[in-house]
Amino acid sequence: MTAPLAVVVLAAGKGTRMKSDLPKVLHPVAGRPMIDWVLAAAAPLEPREIVVVVGPDMPGVAAAVAPHRTAVQAEQLGTADAVGAARAALADALAAGADVLVLYGDGPLIEAGTLKRMAEAREREAADYVWLGFRPADPTGYGRLVPDDGGDLERIVEEKDCSEAERRIGLCWGGLLLARGAALFAQLPRIGNDNAKGEYYLTALVELAAAAGERSIVVECSAEEVVGVNSRAELAGAEALLQARLRAKAMAEGATLIDPATVYLSWDTRLGRDVTVQPGVFFGPGVEVGDRVEIRAFSHLEGCRIESGAVVGPFARLRPGAELGEGARVGNFVEVKAATLGAGAKVNHLSYVGDATVGSHANVGAGTITCNYDGFRKSRTEIGAGAFIGSNTALVAPVTVGAGAIVGAGSTIAEDVPDEALAVTRAEQKIRPLAARRFREKRAKDKKKE
Amino acid sequence: MTAPLAVVVLAAGKGTRMKSDLPKVLHPVAGRPMIDWVLAAAAPLEPREIVVVVGPDMPGVAAAVAPHRTAVQAEQLGTADAVGAARAALADALAAGADVLVLYGDGPLIEAGTLKRMAEAREREAADYVWLGFRPADPTGYGRLVPDDGGDLERIVEEKDCSEAERRIGLCWGGLLLARGAALFAQLPRIGNDNAKGEYYLTALVELAAAAGERSIVVECSAEEVVGVNSRAELAGAEALLQARLRAKAMAEGATLIDPATVYLSWDTRLGRDVTVQPGVFFGPGVEVGDRVEIRAFSHLEGCRIESGAVVGPFARLRPGAELGEGARVGNFVEVKAATLGAGAKVNHLSYVGDATVGSHANVGAGTITCNYDGFRKSRTEIGAGAFIGSNTALVAPVTVGAGAIVGAGSTIAEDVPDEALAVTRAEQKIRPLAARRFREKRAKDKKKE
Amino acid sequence: MTAPLAVVVLAAGKGTRMKSDLPKVLHPVAGRPMIDWVLAAAAPLEPREIVVVVGPDMPGVAAAVAPHRTAVQAEQLGTADAVGAARAALADALAAGADVLVLYGDGPLIEAGTLKRMAEAREREAADYVWLGFRPADPTGYGRLVPDDGGDLERIVEEKDCSEAERRIGLCWGGLLLARGAALFAQLPRIGNDNAKGEYYLTALVELAAAAGERSIVVECSAEEVVGVNSRAELAGAEALLQARLRAKAMAEGATLIDPATVYLSWDTRLGRDVTVQPGVFFGPGVEVGDRVEIRAFSHLEGCRIESGAVVGPFARLRPGAELGEGARVGNFVEVKAATLGAGAKVNHLSYVGDATVGSHANVGAGTITCNYDGFRKSRTEIGAGAFIGSNTALVAPVTVGAGAIVGAGSTIAEDVPDEALAVTRAEQKIRPLAARRFREKRAKDKKKE
Repeated sequence: MTAPLAVVVLAAGKGTRMKSDLPKVLHPVAGRPMIDWVLAAAAPLEPREIVVVVGPDMPGVAAAVAPHRTAVQAEQLGTADAVGAARAALADALAAGADVLVLYGDGPLIEAGTLKRMAEAREREAADYVWLGFRPADPTGYGRLVPDDGGDLERIVEEKDCSEAERRIGLCWGGLLLARGAALFAQLPRIGNDNAKGEYYLTALVELAAAAGERSIVVECSAEEVVGVNSRAELAGAEALLQARLRAKAMAEGATLIDPATVYLSWDTRLGRDVTVQPGVFFGPGVEVGDRVEIRAFSHLEGCRIESGAVVGPFARLRPGAELGEGARVGNFVEVKAATLGAGAKVNHLSYVGDATVGSHANVGAGTITCNYDGFRKSRTEIGAGAFIGSNTALVAPVTVGAGAIVGAGSTIAEDVPDEALAVTRAEQKIRPLAARRFREKRAKDKKKE
Repeated sequence: MTAPLAVVVLAAGKGTRMKSDLPKVLHPVAGRPMIDWVLAAAAPLEPREIVVVVGPDMPGVAAAVAPHRTAVQAEQLGTADAVGAARAALADALAAGADVLVLYGDGPLIEAGTLKRMAEAREREAADYVWLGFRPADPTGYGRLVPDDGGDLERIVEEKDCSEAERRIGLCWGGLLLARGAALFAQLPRIGNDNAKGEYYLTALVELAAAAGERSIVVECSAEEVVGVNSRAELAGAEALLQARLRAKAMAEGATLIDPATVYLSWDTRLGRDVTVQPGVFFGPGVEVGDRVEIRAFSHLEGCRIESGAVVGPFARLRPGAELGEGARVGNFVEVKAATLGAGAKVNHLSYVGDATVGSHANVGAGTITCNYDGFRKSRTEIGAGAFIGSNTALVAPVTVGAGAIVGAGSTIAEDVPDEALAVTRAEQKIRPLAARRFREKRAKDKKKE
Repeated sequence: MTAPLAVVVLAAGKGTRMKSDLPKVLHPVAGRPMIDWVLAAAAPLEPREIVVVVGPDMPGVAAAVAPHRTAVQAEQLGTADAVGAARAALADALAAGADVLVLYGDGPLIEAGTLKRMAEAREREAADYVWLGFRPADPTGYGRLVPDDGGDLERIVEEKDCSEAERRIGLCWGGLLLARGAALFAQLPRIGNDNAKGEYYLTALVELAAAAGERSIVVECSAEEVVGVNSRAELAGAEALLQARLRAKAMAEGATLIDPATVYLSWDTRLGRDVTVQPGVFFGPGVEVGDRVEIRAFSHLEGCRIESGAVVGPFARLRPGAELGEGARVGNFVEVKAATLGAGAKVNHLSYVGDATVGSHANVGAGTITCNYDGFRKSRTEIGAGAFIGSNTALVAPVTVGAGAIVGAGSTIAEDVPDEALAVTRAEQKIRPLAARRFREKRAKDKKKE
């Protein structure tokens, strides 16, 4: 029988080097806070309980991780102290015999598969502790995982305490630990702080546990997975690694990214088969793209749905609530917000379509603006199927243009237009012959005087 | 006397890993289908005949490579079988004593210079077969080219059949082969399929040929040239390599690319001397740029011609048929399509100029839209030299604004404007004192009720 | 007592490989000419005199480096000859006992800290010459710095003259030199040109000086700092290195750059704390950004100031003279030029605001254009605090919209609007029932005839 699982996410670090008013673990990566990546990696293990250990002044984190609970680490006295801070919150889980998995809120690259391998190893080997090891390109500075004769973990040695032989060990501790909860919390109080910083470190557990006849083993992961974020530069590094994963997945599923390095995906972006994305496209959260869609360069999308065969951009902005039907087209310098475009509808040039419904195969001309806001209220514009909106038109919402109707170029439409009707507002065109020449001559004269 | 040349391009691979409805070799790289790159590399050798070997269900490829002929490989039974599928199509060429060059439709990086070196080596050395070798960073998995005592090629050995010594050979086969046609097609039927996959491989030729007293030699190329594309990630890799070549060439010819990595060129992009391209510029096919042109960030160009001294962007879209005269300027959020701008003409802000002629030194104000489409027909707008189009104007085509004419801001011009005339359509401005205050008070009251 | 300092910047190279009409050292990197980077690196040493050595036909360089003086090197006869060309211009400085620092106009990566270390070493060690060394990844082709037994510099040996042992020396000369001026100019005439190119090289100084009992020592710097620019590809390389420095600094100071590689900074860009910059943002010179500002993807800024809490982009263009107040918003496809936006003012969509003042909390609707130019004069638009400009409006400057006023959508405002008033220009909306259907039927008939 597998033990239930409790997860402790350490998130009390102040992140001073971030130089930010935002708690470090809330800085977003690929469209969501770092800590959400960590919680998402733990989710497939179906933990009974997740406790996030925060610092004393981090109400924002508590709100962000709800309904998971938080525990406060009063002072930053080391990793063992941080895990200890979760003791009360874990009481029920521990009583139920739970395992405890220690994760890091600033380590968004850990993968669910690795956590599963840790859990499987713990069960298969009946080990009391599973320590996550990795092999950095250069191990200098990391704690080395020293094996005993049987291949179990004997000690974790800090760089400065390494013997020559130990310094040559390439396998280092990545900071993560899965432990039998009862064992872990029995040993925690025995950890001392007789070290340079006077802090309590989890690493001390290995020898204490061994002395108590408890077994420690190691599971390995890629070096990338244990990358932590302590500065904006490291934040950018984590972003790049997660983007690489998301891009590889999108390509494997049949999307062409002409230059993957300049296509920015969010954690939940979904791209269909035979989608082509030109360089310079930013996907904020909540974008779903059907098959055979073409997204041209320099487009910015968030919270929108695009059905098969649609063409978007270049220079298109789709904001939350934009829904494009099959084969619809949104062209350059067009913004669509909270608006539905029917199948085959076209908004090809320099337009703002907000709070609107555009019927199928309607054609919205260049320079069309839906005037959806009067400074107080947002109102809707309805454009019927097959309607044709002439260029440079303002549609003053609430207003309806009926199916098959035509609006003449340059109009300001404030009253509804019936189906199949033609509507126009246009002042008479006045022509003053040679007035342009006279104007130029006058301006030239003015200039001389100056 | 040099033998005539026949080229066989293998393009029957299904490309399953692409997850695409488009045949693999038709996926574009740097603005044209992969297979076009291969055909272009072969062209300088002036082949008498090019035969593209396709799979049974690839009418698209046949259409794309026309007038070159295609031959169908019924089943995918290996490279030797694929070349054999071209036998009938090559009958005339073989009868004329042609050499046969085997290329790959999914290998767009091969360079003409390398193919020429193969042809020269074949003639100079009077070899029957010239095999193209390369030295990958890690040869694991590639067939090793084993030399005989005289330095000719003795065998090609698959990884799994390699002796220790052979495994250390760094020179591997890149898949390409130039052969005396008569020899090649005489040996092909002798190739067996006694291997794991039951397929017929060209590699078997080397030993068969040697047994028949025919000579095989090796010509080397860079590892980059034999890169093949089997997935979207590899497609992106090929794109990056070709872009690097195109960018290097543009810089060598005197263009500044501030960040070469974000300037996307097409195979036929031509940039003049002292051109500056800011980051984030996409050149689709068919763009020609004169000297001293500045193309600012986030611009998208295809099928257009820009004469010397013009300034484009940032945020400009030039579509097919855009022609910018000397010193013309197209600024931000401007789209130009099928339109000619005379020397020194300016369209600087937020405009759509389509199906139009703009005279030299004309000034098209911000927010100008040519209404070129009525839902059925496209019509043209003519703007004379030195004309001034006031901002936020709609020009309802077909319409002509004469030379030196002025159009007042906010007009909708549906009738021709004579030279030097001033035209305007403007309703009277009505002012209702304090009405804004009353409106706000009413809205505030409404809000309370809600 | 520290000697005064004179700086000689060598800038006479023709830069043939740049294929440019612009002198090489004037090509910009990160927003300013290469040579400005060099002058800026020297500035903290407070030189008494800076002389730029130019070629015979480079008036542009003289103008660009003023008020610093230039000296002309008539023919390109080597580095020693180039330094010699500055002799007359340095007469006063030399008379005052100055040290002479030799820099390169095409070496924009040299850092002030390195130059200071050279000066400190010269003083501390009482050396006559301080040569700048670096350790390239591959020293092939560079002059090796051969130490004498005491650790001083004995000789600089060109690749081709290296012994086996010398070829293994990793420390190479970076071209820079700080010397006791009197010693340097005494030795210069003794340098011969008995070499392949018949040129006079500074490297010969070391042995001449040693023979005269003068000491040469070496100070090391990173390989990056001595990168020189001789082609457009190397220009792009220097740009990348300087961008990396600027980006690292911005991040260290508390800005998030989601993809640092696509954020282009200028030498003087200032970003506040908790600023977020999405991918694809170009900062030209003169941009200052306050705290907590968000700059969204695909924005282009130059010469503008953005106060705290403002939001810019995506697809925003801020041109010189744009000033955004606290919490102001400039959204997509908006261009702002020489215009001040008050606190909380909004210009969210498809607008051009030029030569204007927008009051605090005013709302400028989509598609608003300030018509600031009549072909001759620029005029100003004033929009009062809290005003509301309806969409698709043209404001014909000079014009004032009062505080709290409202302008109806689709208007062309050419007369001032009082505070709290409502203004509108709108022709009557005409509706012709079923006219759209008749139009379509007619067009369809026309098409049949064609």
